[in-house]
Amino acid sequence: MRVTIYEVGPRDGLQNESTVVPVDVKREFIGRLAAAGLTTIETTSFVHPKWVPQLADAEELLDSLSRVPGVSYPVLVPNERGLDRALERGVRDIAIFASATDTFARANLNRTLESQFEMFEPVVARALDHGMKVRAYVSMCFADPWEGPVAPAQVVEVGRHLLDLGCYELSLGDTIGVGTPAHVTALLEAFQDARTDVAQLAVHFHDTYGQALANTLTALRMGVTTFDSSAGGIGGCPFAKSATGNLATEDLVWMLDGLGIETGVDVCELASTSLWLAGKLGRPSPSRVVQALAKEL
Amino acid sequence: MRVTIYEVGPRDGLQNESTVVPVDVKREFIGRLAAAGLTTIETTSFVHPKWVPQLADAEELLDSLSRVPGVSYPVLVPNERGLDRALERGVRDIAIFASATDTFARANLNRTLESQFEMFEPVVARALDHGMKVRAYVSMCFADPWEGPVAPAQVVEVGRHLLDLGCYELSLGDTIGVGTPAHVTALLEAFQDARTDVAQLAVHFHDTYGQALANTLTALRMGVTTFDSSAGGIGGCPFAKSATGNLATEDLVWMLDGLGIETGVDVCELASTSLWLAGKLGRPSPSRVVQALAKEL
Repeated sequence: MRVTIYEVGPRDGLQNESTVVPVDVKREFIGRLAAAGLTTIETTSFVHPKWVPQLADAEELLDSLSRVPGVSYPVLVPNERGLDRALERGVRDIAIFASATDTFARANLNRTLESQFEMFEPVVARALDHGMKVRAYVSMCFADPWEGPVAPAQVVEVGRHLLDLGCYELSLGDTIGVGTPAHVTALLEAFQDARTDVAQLAVHFHDTYGQALANTLTALRMGVTTFDSSAGGIGGCPFAKSATGNLATEDLVWMLDGLGIETGVDVCELASTSLWLAGKLGRPSPSRVVQALAKEL
Repeated sequence: MRVTIYEVGPRDGLQNESTVVPVDVKREFIGRLAAAGLTTIETTSFVHPKWVPQLADAEELLDSLSRVPGVSYPVLVPNERGLDRALERGVRDIAIFASATDTFARANLNRTLESQFEMFEPVVARALDHGMKVRAYVSMCFADPWEGPVAPAQVVEVGRHLLDLGCYELSLGDTIGVGTPAHVTALLEAFQDARTDVAQLAVHFHDTYGQALANTLTALRMGVTTFDSSAGGIGGCPFAKSATGNLATEDLVWMLDGLGIETGVDVCELASTSLWLAGKLGRPSPSRVVQALAKEL
């Protein structure tokens, strides 16, 4: 069995770190991620620099990146202006960022739950016309800070809408990290009931409450084969103001290695990369594996 | 469904912290653990103070402890001298500490894998004669730092021997924290094949490589209902020299709450206790839940 690790460190990770790292550090980071065996590396975002100053150098980074054959370097695209920028740079894979809750759609996208699709529709349609692949993040799939727990049926409705637009994959995000395995099961079962192919579902867990790996294991047992994670667990959670962000890629790889599931990732090489990056970010990696291996590397 | 959390913070946790906390802090810690709803709290150890100076105040602590009815306060007893001390103090529940590997038995117990039972036999027999309950820790059940991975059959042999002596429960420990869910499944299946009642099995995971909760979930799914953890995740791992020790009780309770499994533990009250103790230990709690709730408590 082989699974896909969708590495979000350079985008979701660095976007939520308070330290802004220079473009040459990002370039080296991405190069080292590919060298460690990662084959899908979300590289940056075409969000307006006013909102995400950490990724203001998107064009400069893409122009100077050495691309490894066989590795994809998707870029987050929030809207049509972002898509224009992606097209100018010849980007092949993009991701859009949707919300499963109305309150977060209003807070983050300045749209309602329903009207967000009007924003995405031309983005996805034009991207597909240009032969791009479009992934859709669905954030706040388990709970959001305002509405509390989110009903699986609501997430399925949002997700089905995005798949119907032409997205090839949904990344179901527990943006605030409060979900537990029972909720994961309920959400994936709701998608099954709606006849969604599990191959179209990825999961994206934050370790804010220590649940990320147990949730990932639950999804794996239910047939999910694409897992989002960030090298070293960088990222934090912008809503919980916690030091702990995305599931650390190293902790995920450690488990998958133990399960005999192929990832192609060299966990020691990856942990070395995270240690090096932690020096640049000025804080220790929250990854347990990185901390444990730090004594040996 | 209801499970038992076997709280090891005051013994396994404090024993592996570099800071030695005063007896009145231990007393308050244990009192607050019971107030938060924990019903089994391993209190201290009758190991010689030369080996574990952190717990040299065992008698003083036991003499001054306010016991809550319905809560058990087991004590670790390494040998007959330890048992004498336990009997003098009227202790009702004890735990012995065995090894699943020969190298660790030699290093930690100064015995071979086989000869450790000669040491335990009179301890367990006398304890049972006095109406005590005896739990057996089996350490290094997944791997040890010298021998690498440990075969499940070897662990089963050690465990069966301890049950045959009269121990009511085995605590299967991943002392260095390297195990993953597949290994947990293999070990529990090996015990099933040897016709061991799963009610006699507890699991004891360390979060050194971030696997503790995923491993616990795996054991829960296989019918295990007793889980060792330490409040705030205190303890470190004496072999990996990692800041991350036992599975944090808060992270475990968060998952069990989400699964609708009763524990009787108030996670906020427990996290407050761990934050207070972290101040005494002079280092932040490694528990994700404690870190996340710290902003709200």
